[in-house]
Amino acid sequence: MSREAAFSEADHRHMARALMLARQGLYTTDPNPRVGCVIVQHPPGQPERVVGEGYHLRAGEPHAEIHALSAAGEHAKGATAYVTLEPCSHTGRTGPCAVALLDAQVARVVVAMVDPNPRVSGRGIEILRAAGIDVSVGLLEQDARALNPGFIARMQHKRPFVRLKMAMSLDGRTAMGSGESQWITGPEARRHVQRLRARSSAILSGVESIIMDDSRLTLRAEQLQLDNADSVVLRQPLRVILDTRLRLPLAAACLREPGRTLVMTTPDHSPEKRAKLTAAGADIQVFEPGPDGRLPLEELLGWLAEHEQVNELLVETGATLAGALLDARLVDELQLFVAPTLLGGEARPLFALPGLSRMADQRRLAIHDMRAVGRDWRIIATLQPD
Amino acid sequence: MSREAAFSEADHRHMARALMLARQGLYTTDPNPRVGCVIVQHPPGQPERVVGEGYHLRAGEPHAEIHALSAAGEHAKGATAYVTLEPCSHTGRTGPCAVALLDAQVARVVVAMVDPNPRVSGRGIEILRAAGIDVSVGLLEQDARALNPGFIARMQHKRPFVRLKMAMSLDGRTAMGSGESQWITGPEARRHVQRLRARSSAILSGVESIIMDDSRLTLRAEQLQLDNADSVVLRQPLRVILDTRLRLPLAAACLREPGRTLVMTTPDHSPEKRAKLTAAGADIQVFEPGPDGRLPLEELLGWLAEHEQVNELLVETGATLAGALLDARLVDELQLFVAPTLLGGEARPLFALPGLSRMADQRRLAIHDMRAVGRDWRIIATLQPD
Repeated sequence: MSREAAFSEADHRHMARALMLARQGLYTTDPNPRVGCVIVQHPPGQPERVVGEGYHLRAGEPHAEIHALSAAGEHAKGATAYVTLEPCSHTGRTGPCAVALLDAQVARVVVAMVDPNPRVSGRGIEILRAAGIDVSVGLLEQDARALNPGFIARMQHKRPFVRLKMAMSLDGRTAMGSGESQWITGPEARRHVQRLRARSSAILSGVESIIMDDSRLTLRAEQLQLDNADSVVLRQPLRVILDTRLRLPLAAACLREPGRTLVMTTPDHSPEKRAKLTAAGADIQVFEPGPDGRLPLEELLGWLAEHEQVNELLVETGATLAGALLDARLVDELQLFVAPTLLGGEARPLFALPGLSRMADQRRLAIHDMRAVGRDWRIIATLQPD
Repeated sequence: MSREAAFSEADHRHMARALMLARQGLYTTDPNPRVGCVIVQHPPGQPERVVGEGYHLRAGEPHAEIHALSAAGEHAKGATAYVTLEPCSHTGRTGPCAVALLDAQVARVVVAMVDPNPRVSGRGIEILRAAGIDVSVGLLEQDARALNPGFIARMQHKRPFVRLKMAMSLDGRTAMGSGESQWITGPEARRHVQRLRARSSAILSGVESIIMDDSRLTLRAEQLQLDNADSVVLRQPLRVILDTRLRLPLAAACLREPGRTLVMTTPDHSPEKRAKLTAAGADIQVFEPGPDGRLPLEELLGWLAEHEQVNELLVETGATLAGALLDARLVDELQLFVAPTLLGGEARPLFALPGLSRMADQRRLAIHDMRAVGRDWRIIATLQPD
């Protein structure tokens, strides 16, 4: 399919609107992608007119195109449809959107990005083109991709988009030597973290952090400060706890919260503890340890994508697991919340990066964004290639 | 003297210009303050006219007012003089500026800030007022104070303004575990540090850092990237090395550089080593150690202000001395240069802050500025009061 199509200023404006609509589903579409659609009629000799808008809100409910077509009704005929993601070609719960657009007799479809699933990619566009509809692809594609980093990672690479969040002091410390860490950052930063949780399919933590902080790893409506907070918290992200030696306390707060807790462990641990944890509400998944005796990180990320449809995975953990993920180059994005405070050289480090002993080994980052978040600062960075 | 004077828009404009002129001396007036002066004539029925401008360039050369009066000549009569610092009342190498303004028959003098030296503060203004000249004080005073933090600290508190500069990775590390640290930050950040050195009377370091890096602690014209770099480097800041046990290597590079190296040590160390260091070009100053066996930081800062006229002191050192200065609340400003890189948990910490073990003990900072400096970031912060 051609990506060289020239797009007009109006095309850009409508697709930007469709992207804005798609964002309405940021916290609710999981495991589906966030998608928006705008339908525009061009009556001859008159100004163009938006006749339908829609976005996907929740899995099981209609796709963006169906909402927009339904709003447009008869006016969809001869119109242009702007969609942030290639219309689906499969007969899902809502029928293939490509066929719905075709049935509505739209004249043109503008698509921001093709379906990232290699098995169906391009098929929706083919259906439309075969029916003589003019299809252009690639308008504001980067913005469309940025909306669904997890869905794209899962479809294309069969693993989640891994976002590592750390809260640290200005001298790079996450807790006092004793482990005490509440709170380094302020309420604004913690609200940001709540929203990161809300957009994630799952939250990953090491059992050590759970033992130390007894974190609940949940969404709290009152902290989200979203208009639709009550609806957002209906879906609690899956809590994934890496627990090689099955040390999770039966009294852990996260086991009593709404939503599921999945404990990933290695074989051969007390069947009794396993039974008790299961009884306490945990799901348990066993992996053969790697040569280092630890859980195989890459494999379990793949497992989460395949078996739990995890798109975006938020990692909230301590220096050891965070360092191991970085070392294995499994972190797609770092979000550092930096508090204007010093905890000193005896406090806990940000990342354990064992074996890093020469300047030549340093892990260079690309910083994409740095901004004030309340009294703290948020830095978004990615690891540079070696 | 009244600080309630109402200042006009034109007053603000001329004083802002005087402050800009004063900044021309940023790297050269030491140990004198940076001062600028603008003289404005108001011919009846005509627009006002700047008739003289001046700034203090170098100790031993004329003060700002003298330059501006000399440029104004006869036009100073009846004019307004804007001065960023109270005109001096003492008979120095250039005669008292207050008397010069009086002799030139200016009608009005606007002063940004009074002389910070409590022994002479207000005397220049008194001289002018006694002669019937209209004197207003306090216009853009904060800006005027910001120009001379060191001179003010020395005059008012008998100690230098202490600026602690650290270069760190994003995870708060200043060097690998081995001590290797060249270079964490990029050339832009290093140029900024050169300029921090250039505005400082002295640079303070611990002997450990000198042993590790063999730093020269000098200004290099080619790195300053200033139009007047060749002139700036004529004054090399005093190098002050804290060396409790007199371990400074005789071969240290800093001993062979232009400018003076002052070694501060405790009594009773090998007279032979002292003689050799003296022969190698070092000045040696002995202090009785504090109860902890270390050099008495507060006392030696006072000594530098009194005996070496140190206004701004730049500290470039490692975690131990930096932590000790912070702990003693002797740091007036922190400048952190943060490189987008990770050095890991085995690398050297930013600050040793022994005894800091509970979150309640954390050292809170106020961040005044955060900006990109080449590929790095610079953070300017101060310690919050306890």
